[in-house]
Amino acid sequence: MVNFIKPDASRNSQRAQVLDVLGAALKAVDPVQAIRHVVVGSDNNTLWIDGRAYNLDRIRRVIVVGGGKAGASMASAVEELLDNRITAGVVNVKYGYTAPTNRIEVREAGHPVPDQAGVDGTRAMVELLRDTTPDDLVLCLISGGGSALMTLPVDGVSLADMRVLTDVLLRSGAPIQAINTVRKHLSQVKGGQLARLAHPAAVVSLILSDVVGSPLDVIASGPTAPDPTMFAHAQGVLARYDPAGEVPASIREHIRRGISGAFQDTPKAGDEALADVQNVIVADNARAAAAAAERAEELGFNTLLLTTYLEGEAREVAQVVAALAKEIAATGQPVPRPACLLLGGETTVTIRGNGKGGRNQELALAAALAIQGLEDVVIASLATDGTDGPTDAAGGLVDGETVRRGERMGYSALAALDHNDAYHYLYSVDGLVETGPTNTNVNDLVAVFVF
Amino acid sequence: MVNFIKPDASRNSQRAQVLDVLGAALKAVDPVQAIRHVVVGSDNNTLWIDGRAYNLDRIRRVIVVGGGKAGASMASAVEELLDNRITAGVVNVKYGYTAPTNRIEVREAGHPVPDQAGVDGTRAMVELLRDTTPDDLVLCLISGGGSALMTLPVDGVSLADMRVLTDVLLRSGAPIQAINTVRKHLSQVKGGQLARLAHPAAVVSLILSDVVGSPLDVIASGPTAPDPTMFAHAQGVLARYDPAGEVPASIREHIRRGISGAFQDTPKAGDEALADVQNVIVADNARAAAAAAERAEELGFNTLLLTTYLEGEAREVAQVVAALAKEIAATGQPVPRPACLLLGGETTVTIRGNGKGGRNQELALAAALAIQGLEDVVIASLATDGTDGPTDAAGGLVDGETVRRGERMGYSALAALDHNDAYHYLYSVDGLVETGPTNTNVNDLVAVFVF
Repeated sequence: MVNFIKPDASRNSQRAQVLDVLGAALKAVDPVQAIRHVVVGSDNNTLWIDGRAYNLDRIRRVIVVGGGKAGASMASAVEELLDNRITAGVVNVKYGYTAPTNRIEVREAGHPVPDQAGVDGTRAMVELLRDTTPDDLVLCLISGGGSALMTLPVDGVSLADMRVLTDVLLRSGAPIQAINTVRKHLSQVKGGQLARLAHPAAVVSLILSDVVGSPLDVIASGPTAPDPTMFAHAQGVLARYDPAGEVPASIREHIRRGISGAFQDTPKAGDEALADVQNVIVADNARAAAAAAERAEELGFNTLLLTTYLEGEAREVAQVVAALAKEIAATGQPVPRPACLLLGGETTVTIRGNGKGGRNQELALAAALAIQGLEDVVIASLATDGTDGPTDAAGGLVDGETVRRGERMGYSALAALDHNDAYHYLYSVDGLVETGPTNTNVNDLVAVFVF
Repeated sequence: MVNFIKPDASRNSQRAQVLDVLGAALKAVDPVQAIRHVVVGSDNNTLWIDGRAYNLDRIRRVIVVGGGKAGASMASAVEELLDNRITAGVVNVKYGYTAPTNRIEVREAGHPVPDQAGVDGTRAMVELLRDTTPDDLVLCLISGGGSALMTLPVDGVSLADMRVLTDVLLRSGAPIQAINTVRKHLSQVKGGQLARLAHPAAVVSLILSDVVGSPLDVIASGPTAPDPTMFAHAQGVLARYDPAGEVPASIREHIRRGISGAFQDTPKAGDEALADVQNVIVADNARAAAAAAERAEELGFNTLLLTTYLEGEAREVAQVVAALAKEIAATGQPVPRPACLLLGGETTVTIRGNGKGGRNQELALAAALAIQGLEDVVIASLATDGTDGPTDAAGGLVDGETVRRGERMGYSALAALDHNDAYHYLYSVDGLVETGPTNTNVNDLVAVFVF
């Protein structure tokens, strides 16, 4: 359950309304709520999943696999709905993210760096998918972190080889998409291959998206989605970012053989193995933002959902967010007071100082500097997983008085921003938002309120 | 007149519509148009200025003073309206920004670094304001650059002293507002002091604003606006940013004496000397953005004016602008296609490379990278003065094909961005917007079109 510990909502009704709106967003993307919303049982033993009917009378086995940080709560939600119909299941979660389940085995594994436990869990999933028939239903539970947590390199390539690959490519500046193209072609499950292993069973992927825009082939490296990349692309990445051949020979050899046709490439759109696959985004940033917008409208705010694709350096994005607040305050454009603008996505922070903070706290702190003196403006930025950067806060909440409040206590907001020390600053001025772990992750929400 | 030389508007109707909308914005802030809009003569010898009546029969002399890059065209506009009623006038403009006039003397001077010509011209203005009476009308024409172009240090402080002051404060990281606080207290005209010199004449300032948000005390250092800063603030700035006492003794002495009451401080709100002053913003970013919005609506676009307070690092602001385009393209939020979003203000560029470009071109280039592959999206960014950075282009115009177009020609948009070389890249892919000099400056406009 969402529980805003701080700031004290009762102290200030403006803040209370902001937290009310953000709380509505978190509630809408709670994995249990979200799965219940999408997966609905009916009296005549039919399971409706996002509008598609599955006749449970004709289903022999229900197998659950998957991975991601929200895996445990997703597994609980599925158990609650299907209970004794579940035949078996294995879901990999990050160390410390486990929870009690009945029929689905929740296994802890390494994230963000994959480890042997992750490999073992993934191999157990593959075992469950052996000998599937068209009468089986495979439920795949996917959430953020699933790419590292569902790791099973092809034969001949070790986990150590994979780590060297990642190190080499990162060091030479390869973009993450390029790295993932190579990884998909060294995996037994990524890039739609998990769905191919499950074939000819019906496959339903319930996906909690932590990727801006929710592209199916990117979230957790798309284990049940068609993959647009090919062995030749993977080789192109190596040619460009590993000209010296530092990547292990096992990997180069596998890709070379892949190009020569020794192995099947990842399944493409239209592949027969993906014919009976339903990929369902059960929750993503758009759902959170829409729920926030709905709640803000209920509360009487003139509301605009501006984007769910927000990216950029947090402190610079804050300038734009502040510019939106200033216009509403000055002219009532694009919507008059009381107004609420919502922006979803995920910003980044280039670390220069050695302070403590997260992208949402940094965005809020920079916004505080930009809106100082402005009355009746509140800007909040929230990590929906409840953990903003390496802190116990979910984000920040600031207004036109925040900077002055700090000054009166002897703290400089500008200095805090210079040192990437938003956490301590916001803590001092009562500007942290704390939710505790939310068991979900659909990136961040930024809300601008002008009362 | 606005003349879009490039890209060729006939080639592409989407581009033509974008340029049409931007052209409407430029037209609305053309100094001549803007002054005609605000200053209206009537049959019975009454001059209406922004709703206030001036009976020309009772006015003995009309004196014109002022400074700024748009000074020559503003002077022409005023001459056109008042013609032989003008008694005398002096307006300082930047070298090369002059134009023929009849009664108003247009003097060229140094900008951004003030020079003796600027001092001489400002002294000539002060001479014109000697012996004014309540029967005189002083028209003050203010535009961007006016602070440097209307320079007249107090007795005992030389132009060389002022340069040292600026150098010392800039070097120690003083923000521009702090520097201007000191400068106002070393000037005979800044911070409302020009209006005090004109007193007891009626004063009308016609102001073309190049400052985001158009604060009267900031534009050209507010020669006819109440000044919220005091000698004590100026001393505070020196104490903080010149602890070693590198600022010339003449300056420190003047401020010390000012605090002790030897001189009047700059006039504050409510000061009798400002009682008969009318400050009129004849054009600013808000006017340009509103005209663009009006034109976009005429053309059938669902239009939102999001802000006229846009600030931030250009390439990061571009991320947010692109995020807005992506949402409209994907979901039709916050407004459905065909959509036009407008953002005004002025971004900044932190130069890392040694390429050629300007903030608007850099914003456009970064946006091109962020929207690549997106169909029917055009993003344009325009400097309203027609000169974006040290280039002959006014800005950039990009779409989802821009990056691929460059790739086909062997150019990397990413590399160009890394080197701050937007100009050459956009030139190659036909993505420059060129207007020639517009004789105005109300900062920048960014337009997002989703067709």
